[in-house]
Amino acid sequence: MAKIQVFGHKSPDMDTVASAMGAADLLAQQGLDTEAVAQGKPNAETQFALDYFKLEALPVIDKATTEQVVLVDHNEAAQSVDNLADVTVYGIYDHHKFNFQNATPLYITAKPWGSVSTILYYEYKQAGLTIPAKIAGMLASGLISDTLLLKSPTTTDVDREALPELAKMAGIDDIEAYGLAMLKAGTDLSKKSDEDLLEGDAKSFTMGGHDFRIGQVNTVDIDDVLKRQADLEKAMKASGYENFLLVITDILNSNSKAIYLGDVAAAVENAFDKNLVDNVIDLPGVVSRKKQVVPPLESQF
Amino acid sequence: MAKIQVFGHKSPDMDTVASAMGAADLLAQQGLDTEAVAQGKPNAETQFALDYFKLEALPVIDKATTEQVVLVDHNEAAQSVDNLADVTVYGIYDHHKFNFQNATPLYITAKPWGSVSTILYYEYKQAGLTIPAKIAGMLASGLISDTLLLKSPTTTDVDREALPELAKMAGIDDIEAYGLAMLKAGTDLSKKSDEDLLEGDAKSFTMGGHDFRIGQVNTVDIDDVLKRQADLEKAMKASGYENFLLVITDILNSNSKAIYLGDVAAAVENAFDKNLVDNVIDLPGVVSRKKQVVPPLESQF
Repeated sequence: MAKIQVFGHKSPDMDTVASAMGAADLLAQQGLDTEAVAQGKPNAETQFALDYFKLEALPVIDKATTEQVVLVDHNEAAQSVDNLADVTVYGIYDHHKFNFQNATPLYITAKPWGSVSTILYYEYKQAGLTIPAKIAGMLASGLISDTLLLKSPTTTDVDREALPELAKMAGIDDIEAYGLAMLKAGTDLSKKSDEDLLEGDAKSFTMGGHDFRIGQVNTVDIDDVLKRQADLEKAMKASGYENFLLVITDILNSNSKAIYLGDVAAAVENAFDKNLVDNVIDLPGVVSRKKQVVPPLESQF
Repeated sequence: MAKIQVFGHKSPDMDTVASAMGAADLLAQQGLDTEAVAQGKPNAETQFALDYFKLEALPVIDKATTEQVVLVDHNEAAQSVDNLADVTVYGIYDHHKFNFQNATPLYITAKPWGSVSTILYYEYKQAGLTIPAKIAGMLASGLISDTLLLKSPTTTDVDREALPELAKMAGIDDIEAYGLAMLKAGTDLSKKSDEDLLEGDAKSFTMGGHDFRIGQVNTVDIDDVLKRQADLEKAMKASGYENFLLVITDILNSNSKAIYLGDVAAAVENAFDKNLVDNVIDLPGVVSRKKQVVPPLESQF
């Protein structure tokens, strides 16, 4: 077994899987004994990319089984393995806000860029190392997924520079066509259970003493998802979370609506300056949970 | 006024001042509007280096007065400006353990290296930027100070590589002679008040619910400092801290003794596997608070 497991957050998405693969390879090229793993099975976008680049899914873990670990695409204990406090964090690659403490000096590379895949592209470049073609393909996919093909407001100039370079290394000729096919693969929601929709990309947050579960589903038709609202609300209640917000995002038109169940409805309405109607709030122009959902909510507490 | 203030921890030491100057210049070369400041006056080592390189001391602040800040050589709120929660942390350069949370994605460059000065040397190099000679001199001094001329166990190969390069850029011909002169300048304790000895390089830590103040003084004669033990203990009591540990380090022979006053004496004895005799504990081979004092104490709680 490798000495250092490298993994992203719970409910792994495309960028988390890509950056675990990238960081594990980068650090291995620098002489460390690493293994990329994941806290769950690939989602539909990730499976599309794995199939396209003929890669196996990462081994699934629920606890770290090495003494040292590297965290990618997260730094908060709530999003990490349950035994994080029992292992040593060797390093972190992340692009989120921070809520991290530990007992020993460590490596951290954090940048407020569109994806951790972008950060890894840059780290390889700085180190003068070659990105294997398949990993470049996964990093391109992570970048496309987190920035919705460079259209999300989280997109930076560095992301815009990195994507064509990664695509070239990966042999992707038409970035737009590949990216849309991958994003659409993630929006076939008909076969997904209500629980899968809620938890497929959900993260936990604590805001002013309130526990929030925030899920997000990408679609090409928001109303199609809202047809399932009654069943989704039942599943939300059954989940037991104090507050559940499910953000439903139209990736073609860059808009969202969200279903909210919980006990701080007024704060949610104030955060987005909109009213909840039948538990649904309109979020025009919102596509980024990190940049457009979490900060306005936090500012209420 | 600049848009981004760059500063190190309270009770600024040589590495904190050097890295504030270095980070402010590096970011300015990359197009940001920065100003290096400090949370206090230079200590004797820092004054020696400022005089040697004909530099002014940094402006002293007690609160950040810009909307954005960059933290160097610290990340914990307890060691930062009192209004840290009211400003946005743009970035962090640090080599300590982490205890940081914020609300927005940011830049972090953390490495478990001997000094933040070393990290900045490397960042300039990676960015292909030139370190001005005087700043190279300060960074060399920060590196020498934090690693006790590369003799501290916190010293890494990267520090060993960086020091001669920085010295060359700064026009320091004899690193050993310059370094010893600077370190000795920091050990003239006769003119310092008891409060200065306690607080000159003190930091606050919270361990298992216990507040710890840990100071450190460098000397060439530990017994010379212990002659003042009665007065130092009076000042410790007057300071009001629950636990005070003053580590007295012989920089020539790389040993320490510490004076401890507080209510968890058994934990302190267990941490270092030595007995307290008349409130003094022997710490053979200990020179690094970060690596040899804080971790064994934390492991007791």
